[in-house]
Amino acid sequence: MASQNPVFIPGPTNIPEVIRHACDIPTMDHRSADFPPIFDKAKSGVKAVLGSATGEVVLFPATGTGGWEAAITNTLSPGDKVLAARHGMFSQKWIDMCQRHGLDVHIIEAPWGEGVPVAAFAEALAADTTHGIKAVLVTHNETATGVTSDVAAVRAAMDAAGHPALLMVDGVSSIGSIPFKMEDWGVDLAVAGSQKGFMLPAGLAIVGISQKALAAMETNGLPRCFFDLRDMLSGVYPYTPPVGMIHGLSVATDMLLSEGMEAVYARHHRIAEGVRKAVAAWGFSPCAVTPALYSDTVTAIVTPEGIDAGRIVTHAADTYGVAFGAGLGAVAGKVFRIGHLGQMTDVMALAGIATAEMAMADLGLDVGLGRGVAAAQDYYRSTHAAPARAAA
Amino acid sequence: MASQNPVFIPGPTNIPEVIRHACDIPTMDHRSADFPPIFDKAKSGVKAVLGSATGEVVLFPATGTGGWEAAITNTLSPGDKVLAARHGMFSQKWIDMCQRHGLDVHIIEAPWGEGVPVAAFAEALAADTTHGIKAVLVTHNETATGVTSDVAAVRAAMDAAGHPALLMVDGVSSIGSIPFKMEDWGVDLAVAGSQKGFMLPAGLAIVGISQKALAAMETNGLPRCFFDLRDMLSGVYPYTPPVGMIHGLSVATDMLLSEGMEAVYARHHRIAEGVRKAVAAWGFSPCAVTPALYSDTVTAIVTPEGIDAGRIVTHAADTYGVAFGAGLGAVAGKVFRIGHLGQMTDVMALAGIATAEMAMADLGLDVGLGRGVAAAQDYYRSTHAAPARAAA
Amino acid sequence: MASQNPVFIPGPTNIPEVIRHACDIPTMDHRSADFPPIFDKAKSGVKAVLGSATGEVVLFPATGTGGWEAAITNTLSPGDKVLAARHGMFSQKWIDMCQRHGLDVHIIEAPWGEGVPVAAFAEALAADTTHGIKAVLVTHNETATGVTSDVAAVRAAMDAAGHPALLMVDGVSSIGSIPFKMEDWGVDLAVAGSQKGFMLPAGLAIVGISQKALAAMETNGLPRCFFDLRDMLSGVYPYTPPVGMIHGLSVATDMLLSEGMEAVYARHHRIAEGVRKAVAAWGFSPCAVTPALYSDTVTAIVTPEGIDAGRIVTHAADTYGVAFGAGLGAVAGKVFRIGHLGQMTDVMALAGIATAEMAMADLGLDVGLGRGVAAAQDYYRSTHAAPARAAA
Amino acid sequence: MASQNPVFIPGPTNIPEVIRHACDIPTMDHRSADFPPIFDKAKSGVKAVLGSATGEVVLFPATGTGGWEAAITNTLSPGDKVLAARHGMFSQKWIDMCQRHGLDVHIIEAPWGEGVPVAAFAEALAADTTHGIKAVLVTHNETATGVTSDVAAVRAAMDAAGHPALLMVDGVSSIGSIPFKMEDWGVDLAVAGSQKGFMLPAGLAIVGISQKALAAMETNGLPRCFFDLRDMLSGVYPYTPPVGMIHGLSVATDMLLSEGMEAVYARHHRIAEGVRKAVAAWGFSPCAVTPALYSDTVTAIVTPEGIDAGRIVTHAADTYGVAFGAGLGAVAGKVFRIGHLGQMTDVMALAGIATAEMAMADLGLDVGLGRGVAAAQDYYRSTHAAPARAAA
Repeated sequence: MASQNPVFIPGPTNIPEVIRHACDIPTMDHRSADFPPIFDKAKSGVKAVLGSATGEVVLFPATGTGGWEAAITNTLSPGDKVLAARHGMFSQKWIDMCQRHGLDVHIIEAPWGEGVPVAAFAEALAADTTHGIKAVLVTHNETATGVTSDVAAVRAAMDAAGHPALLMVDGVSSIGSIPFKMEDWGVDLAVAGSQKGFMLPAGLAIVGISQKALAAMETNGLPRCFFDLRDMLSGVYPYTPPVGMIHGLSVATDMLLSEGMEAVYARHHRIAEGVRKAVAAWGFSPCAVTPALYSDTVTAIVTPEGIDAGRIVTHAADTYGVAFGAGLGAVAGKVFRIGHLGQMTDVMALAGIATAEMAMADLGLDVGLGRGVAAAQDYYRSTHAAPARAAA
Repeated sequence: MASQNPVFIPGPTNIPEVIRHACDIPTMDHRSADFPPIFDKAKSGVKAVLGSATGEVVLFPATGTGGWEAAITNTLSPGDKVLAARHGMFSQKWIDMCQRHGLDVHIIEAPWGEGVPVAAFAEALAADTTHGIKAVLVTHNETATGVTSDVAAVRAAMDAAGHPALLMVDGVSSIGSIPFKMEDWGVDLAVAGSQKGFMLPAGLAIVGISQKALAAMETNGLPRCFFDLRDMLSGVYPYTPPVGMIHGLSVATDMLLSEGMEAVYARHHRIAEGVRKAVAAWGFSPCAVTPALYSDTVTAIVTPEGIDAGRIVTHAADTYGVAFGAGLGAVAGKVFRIGHLGQMTDVMALAGIATAEMAMADLGLDVGLGRGVAAAQDYYRSTHAAPARAAA
Repeated sequence: MASQNPVFIPGPTNIPEVIRHACDIPTMDHRSADFPPIFDKAKSGVKAVLGSATGEVVLFPATGTGGWEAAITNTLSPGDKVLAARHGMFSQKWIDMCQRHGLDVHIIEAPWGEGVPVAAFAEALAADTTHGIKAVLVTHNETATGVTSDVAAVRAAMDAAGHPALLMVDGVSSIGSIPFKMEDWGVDLAVAGSQKGFMLPAGLAIVGISQKALAAMETNGLPRCFFDLRDMLSGVYPYTPPVGMIHGLSVATDMLLSEGMEAVYARHHRIAEGVRKAVAAWGFSPCAVTPALYSDTVTAIVTPEGIDAGRIVTHAADTYGVAFGAGLGAVAGKVFRIGHLGQMTDVMALAGIATAEMAMADLGLDVGLGRGVAAAQDYYRSTHAAPARAAA
Repeated sequence: MASQNPVFIPGPTNIPEVIRHACDIPTMDHRSADFPPIFDKAKSGVKAVLGSATGEVVLFPATGTGGWEAAITNTLSPGDKVLAARHGMFSQKWIDMCQRHGLDVHIIEAPWGEGVPVAAFAEALAADTTHGIKAVLVTHNETATGVTSDVAAVRAAMDAAGHPALLMVDGVSSIGSIPFKMEDWGVDLAVAGSQKGFMLPAGLAIVGISQKALAAMETNGLPRCFFDLRDMLSGVYPYTPPVGMIHGLSVATDMLLSEGMEAVYARHHRIAEGVRKAVAAWGFSPCAVTPALYSDTVTAIVTPEGIDAGRIVTHAADTYGVAFGAGLGAVAGKVFRIGHLGQMTDVMALAGIATAEMAMADLGLDVGLGRGVAAAQDYYRSTHAAPARAAA
C-alpha cells in the first residue's frame, strides 16, 4: 500500500496541495493571451524571492543542472578560466560540466564538509591581476554535505581584489529556503530548481541574471541552443513552455512572499535546528565542520565507523517506507541525510527523526529510542508559533 | 500555510492519493452504460469487506447517520420495540433517532468505557418470550470511548434465547478496519460510512442487508422516502448517485481486498497497539475498561483530574496544526482521542504521539518528552514488515 | 478510451476545474477552527445566489430529493394537506414522497409540458377558506419536460387569496442558472442540489429556509432525524460534513457571484436559445408548450411519431460517446433532452447539437446535417461577448 | 470564467484525465526502489510506440527542442556535415540549431507545403562518395505546414546510395499519432516530446537511439553535459528526474499500446479526414501541396488573399475561447492551423470546425455556417465505431 509518509530527501520536497493543484491544469494555449500574465507573475515572484530588482529571470523546462549549463554557456567563451572549489558532489559536478564545455577550471580543493574556501578564493583573485578569471562559481548550499557557504564573503573578496569576474551561484537547494540576496551579494547568475524551496515537482531550471551578466552575453558564449538565454529573453518562448509548472511557480512564489521571506527563512531554521538537536542527542555530528556552515535545508549526519550509512537509508525505505538521502561521492557510506526544506513542519520532522531512530536501532546503532525525538520536541516546544489556519 | 500534517481524528481519515484521484473524475452520465460496472464493483467490494455472501448492499449519498435511519425505517414499524445499550455518544445518538421515529427503545444503561452489556442483553432477550423486541442494536465500535463490542456474543445471546429479532450493527468506525463478519455473526443490517475504514471523504452511507432484513421490509416500515431501501434495490438509482464517491469506493474496496482483510486487520492492530504502548508510557489509560474492549481504530485516553482534556486537542490544533479528537458527551473534558484507522502508518502514528506529548507537556502534564514515542518505536520496531512498494 | 467529450445531461453538469480542485482536498478536521469559515462562506454564498437576505441555508450530505424531504418533514405535521401539481417526473416524485410521509396531497393534474397551473392553484387556494392547505409545492423547473414555471405568479395567487400556506419550491435544476428570487417571491423552502447550477458533483442537498418556515418548525414536524433542520441549525453539524463538497460550494458560489447572477442568467439564456434555434431548424418543437415556459437549463425535444426518442440517446452514447437525457415517465420515448446548464459554452453546445444531428441522421430522421448547427451558430455569432480570460 | 472548451492547437494536446492523475502524484524518492519500475515501464512503452526493439530510449526533462540537441551533440563532431531540407518552421529551427553548434549544414530548400525533397536528398547522398555527410535530418511532420514527409523514402535513398550517415528524425508531432517505424525505417535518432501524441503536458524530451547511433557516440560528440546521452545511459539518472511526468508517460504508453498502434493511427486519420472534409467544404485547401503529404495530426489551412489568417486565431480565442494555431514563419498570416492529435474525438473536432466557421464568418469570409460541419459530420457518421466505455 502506497503510504502517506512524508519524504525527507533534500528535494524534491513534499508538495503542498495548492501547488499540486496549480500545476495540474488543463491544456492552455501558451500562445494565447492567457499565458503571459501567468508567466510574468511567476518571473516577478522569482525575482522577489531572489532579491533581485534589476535582473531578469528565465525559466527553462529542465532541472538545476540545465540552469548551470545556461549560466556558463551564455556568458563565457571557449577556454575561459573559471574559479571554483571542489568540496562536495554538486560543486564537483558543476566543475565537471565546465570542463566538458572546454572551460579552464581553476579548482581549489577543500574537504567535504567545509564551505567555499573564501581565503583561497581571495588569494586566487588577488593574484589574477590580468583578470584571466572570467567567472567565480559558488555552490551556495552543498546538498551532499549539508554545508551553506558564505556568498557575501566571496563577493567581498572579489570586491577587495577589484576583480570583474562574474559571480555564479548554485542556489538549487538554498533559494526560497535560506537567505539569498542576489542584488546585495552581487550575484550575476543565480541558479535554482523547482523541486526544492519552490516546492514544485522537478522540471524547471530557474535562472536569475544580473545586468552585468546580460552584458557579458553580448560578447561571449559557448555553442548552445536549448539553453540560449537570448532566445528566452526575446519575448517569445522559443519552444513549448511547461505551462502547468509555470502556473505552479506563480502560486509557489505567492505562498512564499505572502508568508514573507524572513518568516520562510526563520521557519526553515527552526525545523533544521530541531533536527540538529536530535543529531546531537544521538551523539552524532553533522558533516558540516562548524555551526556557521550548518545548512537549514539539509543535514548530512556522520555515522560511526563500521556502519555503512547507506544501509540506514535503505532500511528506512524498505522497512518503514520513509525516504532519507544517502551519502554521495566522497561521503558515500559515511553520512546519511535528512532533508528538511520546503513545506516541512515540526510534526513531520519528528516523524522523520523517530523513523531514523528506529532504523538506526534496527541496525545496531545505540542512539536511544526517543532520545533524538525528545531533544527536538524540547526545541520545537520552546519555539513554536501558532500556525496559520489552513485555507484548504 | 496549510500543512501536510496527517489528521488523528477517528474519521474522516487521511485519504490515499489513489482514492482521491478515483473520486475526482469528470462528470459521467449515471444513466449511461458506463456507470453500472462501477456501481456493481463497489457493491460487491463492500460485500466482500462486510463478509456477506448472500446479502445486499446499498449506497446512499449521506453519512453513517443516514445509514442508521435506513436500517430502522425500512424494517421496523411504528411503536416497535428495540433493544439497545447506551454506553457512549454514538449508541446514544442512535437511540435518540429511534425515539424520534416513534420506536420504543428498551435502553440498557452501561458506563461509558464499557462494551455492549451482553449479559443484560441476554437477560432481556430471554425475558422477551413474546418476541416483542423487533431489533437489537449494537454499536460495534464506540468512537467516543474507543470501545469495540462483541457482536458475536450478542448473536450468541440471541441464538441462545431463540430470539428472532433483527440484529442491527453500527459499524461506522469498525468496518474495513477491524474484524467484521456479517454472515458469521448473523448481522441483519450493517451500517458503515465512507470516511473511516473505506478511506474516502464523508458522503456515503453504506448499508449491508441480510435476506432476513429484506424479508422484514415486506411487512414493516416507518414513513420514509430518501432512505427507502425498496427504491434503492429496484435496479434504478432513485436520484442522482454520487458517481465519483462510488468510483472511489470501488477502488478503496479493491485496495482493502488486495491487501487481504486479515492483513488489514493486523495492520490496524499493530498501529493501535503502538499508540497504546505510548499511552501506557505516559502513565495514562484508555477509556475502554478492559483490554478486550480496546478499539484498534481509535483510542480515547483518560487524562488526569484537573486538566480539561479538550485543551490538549485545541492546543495541538492551534500550536502544531495537528487534529486529535476531543471527548464527547459524558467524557467531554475527560478524554482526548487518537484516531488510528485507515491508511495510517507507524511513521504517521509516531508523529501523532510526538505531537500529543508536546501538547501535553505545554499544558503542564508530566508525560515525559519522547517517552511515549520510545514505547511505540520499540513496539513498531519489533513488529514491522517490509512495506509494499508504492505504485504511485 | 475514455473521451473528453462534454455531457449534455440536465445534471450533473460539466464540472469546472477550479471546482474539482476545490472539492478534492486532503482531510480536514471538521471540528477544528478551519472548517467554520469555509462553511459560513458556502452558506452565505448560497444565500446570495438564492436571493435571500433573511433566511437560513442548510447543507445536507444528500441530494435534492433529500432536500425535498427536509422541507416537508420539518414544517408539516402528519395528515397535513399540501397543494401540488403533477406535470412532470419530478413534480410527481415529490408528490409521491409527500404521500409516503402520510401527507394529504391535493393534486392538480396538468399535461406534461405545461407549467404549474396557476389559475387552478389560485382557485384551490381561494376555496380553502379554512386554510387547510399547509403548503404549496412548486417545481420551478421540470427537468423532465424542460418547463420553467412561474413561481412569482403562484406567490401572487397565494397573496390574492390571503393564504398563509408555506411556499415550497423545488429549484434543483433552476437555482444558480435561471432567475430565482427567494425573498421577492416569498419562497419559504427552496431546495437545490449541488450537481446542477452549482456545478459540483452530486452529494449536497441545499435548502434555503425563510423565517416563516423556521417558525413553522416550532409547532410542526413529521418523524425525522437525518434531515432534522433543528439539528442542522443548532450550530454544530450533527454528523460528519462533506468538507470537500462544502469547500467546493464556497468556490462555486464565488464564481457565480463574481460573474454576477444577472450575467449568469443571461449566459444560460444565450446558450439555451442557441439550442432552441437548432431544434427549430430541425423542424422539431420543445416539449414545453409555450415559449414562456421554455427552460434555459434543459430542452426536452419532441421527436416525430414512429421513432423511440430513447434510441437517440442510446445511439449517441454508444456511437459518439456523448450523453443526452432520455425521456422520463409520461414522455419516455417521446422526447430526448439536451441539458445546457452550468459551465456550458456556445462551443460545447455546438458539439452537442452536431452530435444530436449525427445520431438522428443515423436513425433515419431527416434533420439535415449541419442545419441545426448553422442556426445555433448564427445566433451565437450575433450574441457573443468576449470571454473572460482563463485564470487557470 | 475559464471554459472547458478543448484546444485545437497542434500540441500541447487535450490531456486525458487518467494521464493528468498519473502525472499529479506526491513526491517519490527517485533514488528509492519505487522509481525504477516506473521508469523502465515508461521507456519500454516508448520503445514499443517507436517500433524499436533493439534501441535505447532516453527521457530528458526538456522539450523536443532539447531532444534535437541531444541527437546532434552526442553523435556528431565539430564541423561535421549534415544534410537537411528547409521547408517549414521546425525544419528551419533544427537547421539553425545545427549551425549554432558549428555543424556544416547542407541545406536543400523546398517550398513550405512540400515534404522532404527525397530526390534532392538522393542526389546529394549519391554525390557524397566520400561520406562527408554524417547525418541526414528529417522533419517527419512539419507542424507549421501540416506536412508529413516520407521517412521510409529517405531511408531508401540512403540505402540506394550505400550511405552510412545517421538518420535523425524529428517526430515531435508525429510519434504516437501517425505511423512511425523506427526499426523498419532505420531511424538512428528519433525525437519526440511529451505534449503531442503522448498526451502529456510539455516537459519531456523523448529520444530513441539506435545501436548505430550508440556506436557513433563512442567517437563523436560536441560539447554537452545536460543533454549527454552517456550520463543518461549510465544507469543512474544524472539529475532529478521529473517522476510525475515519467509516471504519466508510463500510463500514456499503456493507453496507446492497449488501444493498439494501428488503431491509434486509424483514429487519428479518421479525425483528420473529417477536418479536411470541412476545409474542402469551405472551399479552402491545406497548405500541404498533395494529399500524400497531408498530416493526420495538424491541418494548416490556406486562407484567401486579403485576410490575415492570424486574425481568425485571435478572434476565435477572444470571442469563443477556442485556441487554434496561427501560421508561423513563411506562412504567417497565410494559414491557420487546426491541431487534431492526441485524445481528440469526432465530437470535439466538430466543435472546433463549428467555431472556426463562426470566427471566419465574423471576419467576413464566406464559408457558409454549418457547411464544413455538415461535411465532417457526413464523414464521421459513415466511419464511426462504437467507443470503448469509459473506465473513469
